[in-house]
Amino acid sequence: MKHSLTYELIKKDSRTKARRGVIHTLRGDIQTPVFMPVGTQATVKAMRPEQVEESGAEIILANTYHLMLRPGHKLVEEAGGLHKFMNWNKPILTDSGGFQVFSLKGLRKITEDGVTFQSYIDGSRHILTPEIAVEVQTSLGSDIMMAFDECPPYPADWHYVKKSLDRTNRWLQRCKDAHHNTEKQALFGIMQGGMYYDLRKESAEKIVEMDLPGYSIGGLSVGEPKEQMLEVLDYCVDFLPDNKPRYVMGVGTPDYLFEGVERGVDMFDCVLPTRVARNGQAMTSEGPLNMKNKRFEHDFTPLDHKCDCYTCRNYSRAYIRHLVKSNEIMASMLLSNHNLHFLINMMKGIRKSIEEDRFLEFKKEVYEGYYGK
Amino acid sequence: MKHSLTYELIKKDSRTKARRGVIHTLRGDIQTPVFMPVGTQATVKAMRPEQVEESGAEIILANTYHLMLRPGHKLVEEAGGLHKFMNWNKPILTDSGGFQVFSLKGLRKITEDGVTFQSYIDGSRHILTPEIAVEVQTSLGSDIMMAFDECPPYPADWHYVKKSLDRTNRWLQRCKDAHHNTEKQALFGIMQGGMYYDLRKESAEKIVEMDLPGYSIGGLSVGEPKEQMLEVLDYCVDFLPDNKPRYVMGVGTPDYLFEGVERGVDMFDCVLPTRVARNGQAMTSEGPLNMKNKRFEHDFTPLDHKCDCYTCRNYSRAYIRHLVKSNEIMASMLLSNHNLHFLINMMKGIRKSIEEDRFLEFKKEVYEGYYGK
Repeated sequence: MKHSLTYELIKKDSRTKARRGVIHTLRGDIQTPVFMPVGTQATVKAMRPEQVEESGAEIILANTYHLMLRPGHKLVEEAGGLHKFMNWNKPILTDSGGFQVFSLKGLRKITEDGVTFQSYIDGSRHILTPEIAVEVQTSLGSDIMMAFDECPPYPADWHYVKKSLDRTNRWLQRCKDAHHNTEKQALFGIMQGGMYYDLRKESAEKIVEMDLPGYSIGGLSVGEPKEQMLEVLDYCVDFLPDNKPRYVMGVGTPDYLFEGVERGVDMFDCVLPTRVARNGQAMTSEGPLNMKNKRFEHDFTPLDHKCDCYTCRNYSRAYIRHLVKSNEIMASMLLSNHNLHFLINMMKGIRKSIEEDRFLEFKKEVYEGYYGK
Repeated sequence: MKHSLTYELIKKDSRTKARRGVIHTLRGDIQTPVFMPVGTQATVKAMRPEQVEESGAEIILANTYHLMLRPGHKLVEEAGGLHKFMNWNKPILTDSGGFQVFSLKGLRKITEDGVTFQSYIDGSRHILTPEIAVEVQTSLGSDIMMAFDECPPYPADWHYVKKSLDRTNRWLQRCKDAHHNTEKQALFGIMQGGMYYDLRKESAEKIVEMDLPGYSIGGLSVGEPKEQMLEVLDYCVDFLPDNKPRYVMGVGTPDYLFEGVERGVDMFDCVLPTRVARNGQAMTSEGPLNMKNKRFEHDFTPLDHKCDCYTCRNYSRAYIRHLVKSNEIMASMLLSNHNLHFLINMMKGIRKSIEEDRFLEFKKEVYEGYYGK
C-alpha cells in the first residue's frame, strides 16, 4: 500500500541497532532519530512557532485529548486545521487521546466500544472510541495520527494485558477502517503487551501485518524499572520492519533518548524540556542546572558554553536567575528556548555520530558531561 | 551647560500645544511624542527585546525600586550595566524609585535625608535618599535618570504640599550635586506642587532655573478627577522651555496620551499595554477587546484588521481566545506584542498628524474608533 509518509533508512550503526534515516512527509522531511517538542494545547509552551523551528524542530506533537475538549476539534477544523490555527507549517503528530484518558483513574469507564471519561476542564462527560479518535485527528489535520489503544497499567497480570491487547487489536482495525484521509494523514499502529514477551510478539505481528506507515512501541515508561523497560524495548524493536519508523512515546530525558536510539527507535516526544524550563531548570552539556541556585547569582556566562542558541548568545546565567527569581515570563521563554535547542541539538549529534559510526563514543561523551559518568 | 541629551523641536501644531520633536541621545534618537514601554524588572514582560524594538520602541523604562532590591544595582553594574544585562541597546530611562516607595503606605518613613522603607520581597529595611537614587541609577547606567522627589498624595492640603515641595527642591539640588556621570546620563527634574497653581509655578521656576536636560510633570494621575488633571497639566507645561523634553509619568491610555500631547507633553510611559495583555485584553482600533469573550470563539480574523504586527499577521482572535482560556504563556506573548505595537503605532500616527497639522482630526478619528465617540 502507498502511504502519505515513508521512511528511508540511510545508515545503520555497526555495533548497535541505532539507525539514521529520513521520514518523508507531504510537509517536509524529518531527519531521524528525532525529538518532537510537545505543543499540547496547540502551542509549544512559551515559544513562538518560528522559535521552535529555529531550534531545529522538524515536527511537533499535539494532544487530541486536550484539543477535543478545548477549543474543540471542529473549531480547529473550521480554522483550517491545526497547522493554520497555530501557525506551524511543518509536520504535526497527534496522539489518540487514549493515554490521557487512561490516566484519569476513576474518571473513566472502558467498554468494547471505547472509553467514557470526564473532562478535566468542566467535568462534562465525553466518549472516545477508535472512530472518534480518528475523526478528531482528521479534523485536526495532523500529518501523523495515532491509533486508539489501551495502555495497560503497571503492574498488570497477564490475563488483563491479554484481554486489553485483544481489544486494542480490534480497536486498531476499527481505526484503520475509519481512516479515510490516507492520502494526507498517516495512521501509526501501537504495540502493546505490557511486560510480557509473548504478548509483545503477538502485538507486533498483528500491527506489522496491517502494513501501517509507522509503529509505536507503547505501554513503556509506565512505572516499571528502567532496566526492564529497556529489555522489553530491545525485544520489541526486532519485530518491526526496517522500512518503517519506530516511535516511543513520552520519552525525553537524555539517557532514555540514547538508550532508545541504541535499540533502534527513531522518534521520541516529551514535555520535559519546556516543563522543566518553567520550573527554572536549564538542560546543559554539564547536566541540569537549577537556575534559582545562589551560585549563579554573579555568573555572567551563558547557560551552556557549548550552546549557540538565542538564549546563550544573548543572556547570562545571572540574568536568567534574576528572571526566574522574579517570576518573569521571560524566564520560561528563554529557558524553554534553550532546553529545546539543547535536546534537538543532542539528537543532531546522535544522527551525526551514527553517520560517522561513533554512536557509542558520542553517547559516552554526552553521559560524562550530563550525568558526570 | 552641555548635556548628553538634547531635544530638537521639529514642528508645532497650529491649533494646540502639540509638538513634534526628536530627543538625541548617545544610544540613538527618540522621535517624540513617544510612548515608552515599561521593563520593570529588566524585562518588558513576555517580550524579547528584539520584539520590543520591532514594535517601534525607541526607549524603554526600568524601575529603580525593583532593581535595587532584586537583583541589586551593584550586580547589574557588575554585569556591565542594565543595557547589557537585559540585552537592550537603545536608550533606557530609569525612575528614581520615589514613586514606588511613596506608594508603600505605612511601610515607609520620610525624613529630610530621604525615605526608609521595607522591601516588598522580604521585608528587609532599605533607605532611598537623593544621593542613593542617583547612585543606583548610575550603577544601572540608564540614559535618562530621574530626580528623587516626593509625589504628594491626593488630596493633600496646601501646607503639606508646600513643605513637601520645598524638600523635593532641596532633594533635586542634592541629586544634581551627586550626579557626576553627566557625560553619559541625563538627569531630569520633576515638577511637583499638587493641584495648587502657585506651587506648580514655584516648582517649575525652580527646576527650569537648574538647566536640566529634561523635565517631568509629576504628581498627576494620583486620584484627582481627569478634568482637574488636564487643567493642571495645561497650566504646568507653559512654564517649561521649548528646548527641553517634557515627560508625564505613568500615563498610557489612548485618551491620556492624546490629551497629554495636546498640552505639549513629549514623553509617556505605562505598564498598561503589557499588563492588560496578561489579563487577556487586546487594544485595537475598535477599542479594547476582552479575548475571553464567547463572541470571539469562531472569529478567525486578526485582533485588529488595521494592524500589521506579528500577532495580527499570523494568528486569529479564535486562536488567541483559546490560548487565553487555556492559560497559555503564548497568550501573554501575543497580546503584549500586539498591544505594544498598537500604542506605539498610535504615537507614530500622532507624530505624523502633527507634521501634517491635522492632530485634532487624527485625535477625533482614533477616539471614534477606540471609544466609539
